[in-house]
Amino acid sequence: MAELLKGKPVAEAINQRSREIVSEMAEKGITPALAIFRVGAKDSDLSYERGAVKRCEEVGVRVVRYIFDEDVSEEEFYEKLDEANNDDDIHGILVFRPLPKRFDDEKLRNSIAAGKDVDGCSDLSLAGVFTNRDLGFAPCTAQSVIEILNHYHIDPKGKNVVVLGRSLVIGKPVSMLLLNANATVTVCHTKTVDTEKIAAAADILICAVGKMEIVNKEFTNPDQIVIDVGVSWNEVKQKLCGDVLFEDVEANVKCITPVPGGVGSVTTSVLISHVVQACKKSIS
Amino acid sequence: MAELLKGKPVAEAINQRSREIVSEMAEKGITPALAIFRVGAKDSDLSYERGAVKRCEEVGVRVVRYIFDEDVSEEEFYEKLDEANNDDDIHGILVFRPLPKRFDDEKLRNSIAAGKDVDGCSDLSLAGVFTNRDLGFAPCTAQSVIEILNHYHIDPKGKNVVVLGRSLVIGKPVSMLLLNANATVTVCHTKTVDTEKIAAAADILICAVGKMEIVNKEFTNPDQIVIDVGVSWNEVKQKLCGDVLFEDVEANVKCITPVPGGVGSVTTSVLISHVVQACKKSIS
Repeated sequence: MAELLKGKPVAEAINQRSREIVSEMAEKGITPALAIFRVGAKDSDLSYERGAVKRCEEVGVRVVRYIFDEDVSEEEFYEKLDEANNDDDIHGILVFRPLPKRFDDEKLRNSIAAGKDVDGCSDLSLAGVFTNRDLGFAPCTAQSVIEILNHYHIDPKGKNVVVLGRSLVIGKPVSMLLLNANATVTVCHTKTVDTEKIAAAADILICAVGKMEIVNKEFTNPDQIVIDVGVSWNEVKQKLCGDVLFEDVEANVKCITPVPGGVGSVTTSVLISHVVQACKKSIS
Repeated sequence: MAELLKGKPVAEAINQRSREIVSEMAEKGITPALAIFRVGAKDSDLSYERGAVKRCEEVGVRVVRYIFDEDVSEEEFYEKLDEANNDDDIHGILVFRPLPKRFDDEKLRNSIAAGKDVDGCSDLSLAGVFTNRDLGFAPCTAQSVIEILNHYHIDPKGKNVVVLGRSLVIGKPVSMLLLNANATVTVCHTKTVDTEKIAAAADILICAVGKMEIVNKEFTNPDQIVIDVGVSWNEVKQKLCGDVLFEDVEANVKCITPVPGGVGSVTTSVLISHVVQACKKSIS
């Protein structure tokens, strides 16, 4: 039986650090605030929003919601976004993407003020991840992987880390964060030959494929630490599943994050920590 | 004996493509132009400059030189840089870095107009490399590695590529370019454990360590393609050497780039190709 690397204690430790910054800010009469931009009412957006708002309340971060109908004009949307960009009382901005197709995603990502891009989606934020400099924030899910490793005292330094997936949301940024943490990083993807063999040689395996239960025990070894970033609804099992076929892999590895209750339960805490950090930076 | 992947034919093919664009531009009455900014007169800068200027002449690109004394004021330097940024007749800007210490490198890199950053040093250019989008240009040396592979019909798709080195000038960007070309990429560095073994398993080995003759045959295998990015002056041998101990490695691999005459002889052609591409983009 593998050790379960649960997300909840990680999230709680992050929240505790955030609360300390919130107290610091309170002494200066400042309340960190997150602006949430949502167009329409997709289930997944609503669910993430509920989690984020609850976490904000727990930590003491104010939430300002900008909710728009599906048919909102670009003009109106960007007017409000600019408002939030220029509002000194708003410290972080989260936009649920993708927006309806008429919105250009690149324009949108880069329209969020640099210091307020707490979800790490602008080109400048990504350049910061790539160049290992403090230009913005890392994408929250990628950062969550690092937070879990840190919390459980798993130092990636000198370890062979294999990342399955090369998306801009998770695979590429988490690869860079791990490289910056001195891991030897291999990135695998759909064009990789013999992924099982490469993965099975890893000390740490990051599964960020986005395909349900695709990682079986052939990808693993008994000393391996497996971080499962995937989350999909399994119609047959009627429950959330990750990229990992959990019942097959668990007995064969040293540690593994569960789904649900692993990486996914850390992301909103990371988001909120970015808001309080952005707030602190804004006054320094 | 390994096949030598010489840079000269690669450079010539790139120059030929550049000349075609120069002709296209000439029909519209436009001459692509490169502005070179140099402070002081370091030997390595002068040598690269001579090569670049010669190549510009061969291809039909105009060169404008901005030469400053070591003690130039920041004000004067940036005034001239802005002049070049705003000059519609200048299409690419190369600044020899590092400048004297009083200049902030980050400020400098990001002060070059986005479309004119032909050396790929700004954060936006690097973000383009990271996100695989056309935001700027890749750093010339990293791009040269790709040009050599392409020229010799070595498709990195599905190949295991090991990159030794994680610098922002070469290791990281070349890793991203190779990942974008569908290679399975492993990045090794000073904290990597058992680099020889990892390197020896590679189909393609990119040596970008910057340490003379550090890569011996223990890092290689007989089917391997070795690209040597390093270039150092060997006092004992009284000649330029790469990261690879050539006489040890050559007999044990399939293909290898020589030093000199390999990657280094392609970079100025890539630079000039960026200038003519920037020129073409500027009128479209």
